[in-house]
Amino acid sequence: MGGLYFTFLIALLLSATVEASYCSNEGVQTVRNISELHQDNFGRPGLSHITIAGSLLHGFKEVEVWLQTFAPGAHTPIHRHSCEEVFVVLKGTGTLYLATSSHPKHPGSPQEFPIFSNSTFHIPVNDAHQVWNTNESEDLQVLVIISRPPAKVFTYEDWLMPHTAARLKFPYYWDEKCYQAPPVKDEL
Amino acid sequence: MGGLYFTFLIALLLSATVEASYCSNEGVQTVRNISELHQDNFGRPGLSHITIAGSLLHGFKEVEVWLQTFAPGAHTPIHRHSCEEVFVVLKGTGTLYLATSSHPKHPGSPQEFPIFSNSTFHIPVNDAHQVWNTNESEDLQVLVIISRPPAKVFTYEDWLMPHTAARLKFPYYWDEKCYQAPPVKDEL
Repeated sequence: MGGLYFTFLIALLLSATVEASYCSNEGVQTVRNISELHQDNFGRPGLSHITIAGSLLHGFKEVEVWLQTFAPGAHTPIHRHSCEEVFVVLKGTGTLYLATSSHPKHPGSPQEFPIFSNSTFHIPVNDAHQVWNTNESEDLQVLVIISRPPAKVFTYEDWLMPHTAARLKFPYYWDEKCYQAPPVKDEL
Repeated sequence: MGGLYFTFLIALLLSATVEASYCSNEGVQTVRNISELHQDNFGRPGLSHITIAGSLLHGFKEVEVWLQTFAPGAHTPIHRHSCEEVFVVLKGTGTLYLATSSHPKHPGSPQEFPIFSNSTFHIPVNDAHQVWNTNESEDLQVLVIISRPPAKVFTYEDWLMPHTAARLKFPYYWDEKCYQAPPVKDEL
């Protein structure tokens, strides 16, 4: 019983150490093999997300780069953010749904754009959008570049949801584990 | 003779229109085929540069994305900048030379890092560096992400050149054609 307890304590310690080192941006290697980086679906079926260069993982302040793979049918939520965002499509095809800022109260009916391997697209600041792998048989793989990380994302249940009802998701799914709120200033 | 002069005038007009539309970020398509974007070596042998998403070409203020291909033996100058920079290696192998900020007066002897397909690396702000396709038979292709465009680059002739002698190259080679200096404020 003592042995079991000891083993449990060691396991707990190791797990804490691994988590601390995953979230620590000290001693980050200069050159990293992307295939060895942590990937997860963060609770979203059909998604594989890798933070290639990140604010919380690697100490970036101005840019962040993700590699995301969407299985057939997988998609982002309808969402918007005030940062700049650029996509580079590495593999597959899909559809970008983009609501330009012509509707003051809700996103409104989005425009549809076919996206394809070796294409690039960008999201105008604060325009609601959704990326969808509409190809039934092939993965869609994209590099995503955002500014001013970590991402502050407003999500919508549908295109007619009022902007005022959009839900702020912060920290975002892949930032939750490592995000530590800055200390509250409480000075006289 | 009049016909020739007229043809010349028309050619000049067309060329000015093409240049104006290349440099105008109005009416930029949301989804762009990367293989149809303008590519050039900008006077640097062995380089192919494409601005995938740019400040001067597409109106970005916070991030910029380039696709660069280096023929065997081709390389960047030794240089530094105060923006963040992330590389994603898409094809080939090469060497990153990176002088950490331990030398206060000049870059000093750089560390060498092998870089390879599906690797990523980043350049700490203001560290002098150089990317070199040291593979004798294969192109090196990288996606480059920088913050706070357009790039303001200091170049060095060698690793022992004092920081104070480094040359500011602004606008950078691929920004020269479209850069327009902001108007000088001359108010009473």
